[in-house]
Amino acid sequence: MQRPDQKDLSVLRHSAAHLLAHAVSELFPDTLMTIGPATEDGFFYDFLPQRNFTQDDLPIIEERMREISKRNLPLTHEQMSKDDARKLYHNNPFKLELINSIEGDTVGIARQGEFYDLCRGGHVMRTGNIKHFKLLGVSGSYWRADRNNQALQRISGTAFYDKESFDQFIQRREDAIRFDHRRLGKELDLFSFHEEGPGFPFFHAHGKTVLNIMTDFLRKKLQRAGYQEISTPTMLSEDLWKQSGHYDFYKNNMYFSNIDERHFAIKPMNCPGSILVYKERPRSYRELPLRLAEFGAVHRHELSGVLHGLFRARSFTIDDGHIYCTPEQIEHEVHQTIVMVQEVLAKFGFANIKVALSTRPAKAFGRDEPWEKAISALKNALDHAGIAYTIAEGDGAFYAPKIEFRIEDSMGREWQCGTVQLDLFMPERFDLSYITPAGTKARPVMIHRAIYGSFERFFAILLEHYKGRLPFWIAPMQVKVLTITDDQKAYARDLVHELLAQDIRVQIDESSDPIAGQIKTAQLQQIPWMAVIGKKEVENNTVTLRYVDGKQEFGISRNDFIARAKKESVY
Amino acid sequence: MQRPDQKDLSVLRHSAAHLLAHAVSELFPDTLMTIGPATEDGFFYDFLPQRNFTQDDLPIIEERMREISKRNLPLTHEQMSKDDARKLYHNNPFKLELINSIEGDTVGIARQGEFYDLCRGGHVMRTGNIKHFKLLGVSGSYWRADRNNQALQRISGTAFYDKESFDQFIQRREDAIRFDHRRLGKELDLFSFHEEGPGFPFFHAHGKTVLNIMTDFLRKKLQRAGYQEISTPTMLSEDLWKQSGHYDFYKNNMYFSNIDERHFAIKPMNCPGSILVYKERPRSYRELPLRLAEFGAVHRHELSGVLHGLFRARSFTIDDGHIYCTPEQIEHEVHQTIVMVQEVLAKFGFANIKVALSTRPAKAFGRDEPWEKAISALKNALDHAGIAYTIAEGDGAFYAPKIEFRIEDSMGREWQCGTVQLDLFMPERFDLSYITPAGTKARPVMIHRAIYGSFERFFAILLEHYKGRLPFWIAPMQVKVLTITDDQKAYARDLVHELLAQDIRVQIDESSDPIAGQIKTAQLQQIPWMAVIGKKEVENNTVTLRYVDGKQEFGISRNDFIARAKKESVY
Repeated sequence: MQRPDQKDLSVLRHSAAHLLAHAVSELFPDTLMTIGPATEDGFFYDFLPQRNFTQDDLPIIEERMREISKRNLPLTHEQMSKDDARKLYHNNPFKLELINSIEGDTVGIARQGEFYDLCRGGHVMRTGNIKHFKLLGVSGSYWRADRNNQALQRISGTAFYDKESFDQFIQRREDAIRFDHRRLGKELDLFSFHEEGPGFPFFHAHGKTVLNIMTDFLRKKLQRAGYQEISTPTMLSEDLWKQSGHYDFYKNNMYFSNIDERHFAIKPMNCPGSILVYKERPRSYRELPLRLAEFGAVHRHELSGVLHGLFRARSFTIDDGHIYCTPEQIEHEVHQTIVMVQEVLAKFGFANIKVALSTRPAKAFGRDEPWEKAISALKNALDHAGIAYTIAEGDGAFYAPKIEFRIEDSMGREWQCGTVQLDLFMPERFDLSYITPAGTKARPVMIHRAIYGSFERFFAILLEHYKGRLPFWIAPMQVKVLTITDDQKAYARDLVHELLAQDIRVQIDESSDPIAGQIKTAQLQQIPWMAVIGKKEVENNTVTLRYVDGKQEFGISRNDFIARAKKESVY
Repeated sequence: MQRPDQKDLSVLRHSAAHLLAHAVSELFPDTLMTIGPATEDGFFYDFLPQRNFTQDDLPIIEERMREISKRNLPLTHEQMSKDDARKLYHNNPFKLELINSIEGDTVGIARQGEFYDLCRGGHVMRTGNIKHFKLLGVSGSYWRADRNNQALQRISGTAFYDKESFDQFIQRREDAIRFDHRRLGKELDLFSFHEEGPGFPFFHAHGKTVLNIMTDFLRKKLQRAGYQEISTPTMLSEDLWKQSGHYDFYKNNMYFSNIDERHFAIKPMNCPGSILVYKERPRSYRELPLRLAEFGAVHRHELSGVLHGLFRARSFTIDDGHIYCTPEQIEHEVHQTIVMVQEVLAKFGFANIKVALSTRPAKAFGRDEPWEKAISALKNALDHAGIAYTIAEGDGAFYAPKIEFRIEDSMGREWQCGTVQLDLFMPERFDLSYITPAGTKARPVMIHRAIYGSFERFFAILLEHYKGRLPFWIAPMQVKVLTITDDQKAYARDLVHELLAQDIRVQIDESSDPIAGQIKTAQLQQIPWMAVIGKKEVENNTVTLRYVDGKQEFGISRNDFIARAKKESVY
């Protein structure tokens, strides 16, 4: 979705790309220019230099850009005949190719001082208008993004009109690197990846604890919402995946195996398993809506180049739900699901949830009518629930349109979490039925829905969103008890014992480090609460509560402290 | 292990096999006799009849056996020259083959009336001594149990000296059929099997609930015992399994897959994954004993002919634990594990636990010395803990000797649950180390241990042991609220609401069936408690508690009822 200022920003950023190319042309005159567009987050320019650029070139180029900015050259734009343009670019095959591909007799040329570039136009007035910018990286690219073409060098950067937006962007960018979940995963001993299972996460104790709480939290919510939890096998026959359509539409992302010469797939989705449970016996209208939930581990192939920690892995667990219901029940079920998505995301601190309705993709099951019916049912449900949404054309699953939920994290990034898909195809392909009150057979519809989507990916989003400082209720270690001297150790151990009895995740610092050292260790471990015990606390039977951010509360009675920890743990 | 009366019983049962053959020879004179031994549970005789026997033949044969028993014929036994024996059996190639395979010049012949059989001896005195017997089945077999030999017909049965043992055996046999977990699984809607995943169980809501409680119960115990829960991937590279030795020793039981032309295995065990987590960073002696637990789903190939519900499936979840420790810590860790095994099994109602020490199997890692060291360490741990045990020669894993725990169920059957393996090989193969207090590197030992073994198999044992009536704390549905008339529904719904708030698994019978019908439904569902609400209960704010076995308690105050349900749910 385009922000209101997006168009203006692209003018600035495209101009910044010219500024970059201008600087490069002065510093490395033998470089061939290709193209330099604005992007969502900034801009880039692809060059063919005499030698590859390095990170060390960036400050030099950036400095020259600042210098040209200070020259405050006017930017002009003119139309030129293609013949003249071809003369201008007689030694640049890339530009010649571009000129030939442009319709009409003329092409646009932008100029600032000695520098000129083939360009459709859309610039700021003077180079001095480009003030808040930064080069961010150099990488390899290909002419027209085709691996068979000439390899190029891409320099990318960003630019903003105002300092505040620029500073925020840079800060968020630094945060995103500093609080990359892969880095936090290592620092906080949460999970690891190993060459023996590329793309398959290994969860250590603290990481597994978080996943367990996420599971337990959702399990309780599902129970209250009338779901039944099931579990279905990891390996199922290839024929089943042919019947479901996954084999045709998805086989490049699936892993396969054999048993006794028969072909099996490692499941990439949980729906066919759920369907077999539905079909296990005749179903009555009295059982509908039948809400089957599964925390199902799936495997999906990803190219090794796009693997990205828990964000993009080859195995993950979906908080899957399949609701079998009558057409009349769709609206209520979709609405109930939307409410649950909102509640769950709110518990994790995500309030601003954007909703989109994704329609039929290019590669999908064939008939029009079920698609139209399903899309209109989802629209009705959204409209009646009074929920604002946008349309994402062609973003649906191959078997169903879907409602998607997007959250914004603390670094301003959007993440898709949660979908509701309304599926009229699978019930037909698997000949699902229920017995109506009249004793006849009827076809149920199937709603596929997930809230976290992938447990592992959602965990990673939480980690980055909270910059490693998970909220008290879900922190793998909630309380660390520190003592000023060893004299307070007995009191401290007693406190630990009482907290454990209340299922609080607590540990004691058994070292004899000075208190400042103990605090530092606990902070590095991102433990939300420290219970600091000194002589006074022992005398008064109290606790000093120190939060991970450094704030302190003194003289909390021991019982109050325990009660508060218990209260904050509720989910 | 042989019971004191086992030898005597085999005399009786072997004589019963003769009685069977005698009856068959009278009823079907053209039948060729082969062999008829006593077995652990009874006896059988393999025949080559003119036509195959059917179930319908069994009562007729059994009746003739009773008649011959009443004749009270004396059983005699004589030595006969092989030549005479060959003449006697000139038309029976099986007996001729047996005669030729016996050493010496004579063979034994047993006789009772007209009937005679080639036999080493060991019989009761008279046919009248065989009183408490029953034929149990007819099935196909092969001469000398070799599929390439002549197909035969096996009739099997059992016999006891006393009526009480006989009746108990028959009752247990009937119970084992009536309470087969596969049948209970269907009747109680706990799980199912489907052709699309042969040997892979599908758990329905109530079955999954039991597995979840089993997990939660154990998870809490592990936390208190200082375990760290991890989770490791389902697919790991084939090279890893070569390094661990599983590929060499176990590959026929493994499933394989490919990713990007590289070979992967679906994990049959969790140890290599645990080892990768151990090796993820250098370990200090301060971290030892490091107790890593994983509820790990594994896949192991079984021939389709031996699949047997949850007892023998192709996928299951192990409550796996791997303890990395110093040699000095072995005894403490083994002892702690034994205590935990006893506590867990006791919670499920198994008190009489037999312990065996299994030694090096024929197919195993090679060097003697680690085997001897490991076996003697386990012996020491058992001796110091004062635990009686037997030796099971050659029953160890290919990488370690183990302590095995066997429980006896309500039908007198023994089940192996729980093992402790002391492994000196894997730490070497994976070059595991820890830093000693002196700063040098040392090799830890590795203890593999499980309590349930397989969650799914243990669940099936519980189901059969309790004949479908799981104890209150683990029953998938704990309480059903029934009302005498619809006038009490509001009170009943209120009660349900209060019980749910205490996390009691409760439902209301919403039907308007007469109370007797409601009770019958709840009994068929094996729900341990019924809360029966009539006019009087509403007036007095009480509950009538009816147990699934029919016992009742009247006038329990509503609060007491809720408190009692909560108390009984604790684990």
